[in-house]
Amino acid sequence: MSEFKQVTISKAANVYFDGKVTSRKITFSDGSFKTLGIMMPGDYKFATNEQELMEITAGECEVLLSGASDWQSISAGQSFNVEANSSFEIKAKTLVDYCCTYIS
Amino acid sequence: MSEFKQVTISKAANVYFDGKVTSRKITFSDGSFKTLGIMMPGDYKFATNEQELMEITAGECEVLLSGASDWQSISAGQSFNVEANSSFEIKAKTLVDYCCTYIS
Repeated sequence: MSEFKQVTISKAANVYFDGKVTSRKITFSDGSFKTLGIMMPGDYKFATNEQELMEITAGECEVLLSGASDWQSISAGQSFNVEANSSFEIKAKTLVDYCCTYIS
Repeated sequence: MSEFKQVTISKAANVYFDGKVTSRKITFSDGSFKTLGIMMPGDYKFATNEQELMEITAGECEVLLSGASDWQSISAGQSFNVEANSSFEIKAKTLVDYCCTYIS
């Protein structure tokens, strides 16, 4: 799906890592939400509360899930899941455009 | 207004200046649209097609409109207008979060 319809979007961005990662939250009519974000090239670590589905819209990254021993290479069009109350490390090899779905 | 309701948002970001400027387009039910964007610190020049209202949601920048001789300092909560078929230079002194309204 290339666009999301009938959503509410916050005017202000969420800013992480001195702005190297930014995202905007969109909320659907059923109360569920996603964030659409950008990562500049770099290494980041994120903690999760809910389960997350991370879809990479553009760019290339490597991901290390908490407890995993191997990094996964993820490219545009691919996605990965992260468990709730967990964490993951990500190396953005290029600019990464992503869509994160929070699954509660 | 801190959020926009019942809009359509493109999943993919618009990427300019090697990702130092990114934005996402939101479209309203009447067909009008805005972009919500982030500028990393840096100097940029943009051309306009439609008239634009640029609202700075967070950060600080200096703006030079086409034909103007003086730079204007613009901070979070302030805005500036740009004529159609014109251009402006902007120096983002910090990370800048902006909302651009296109007026046709």
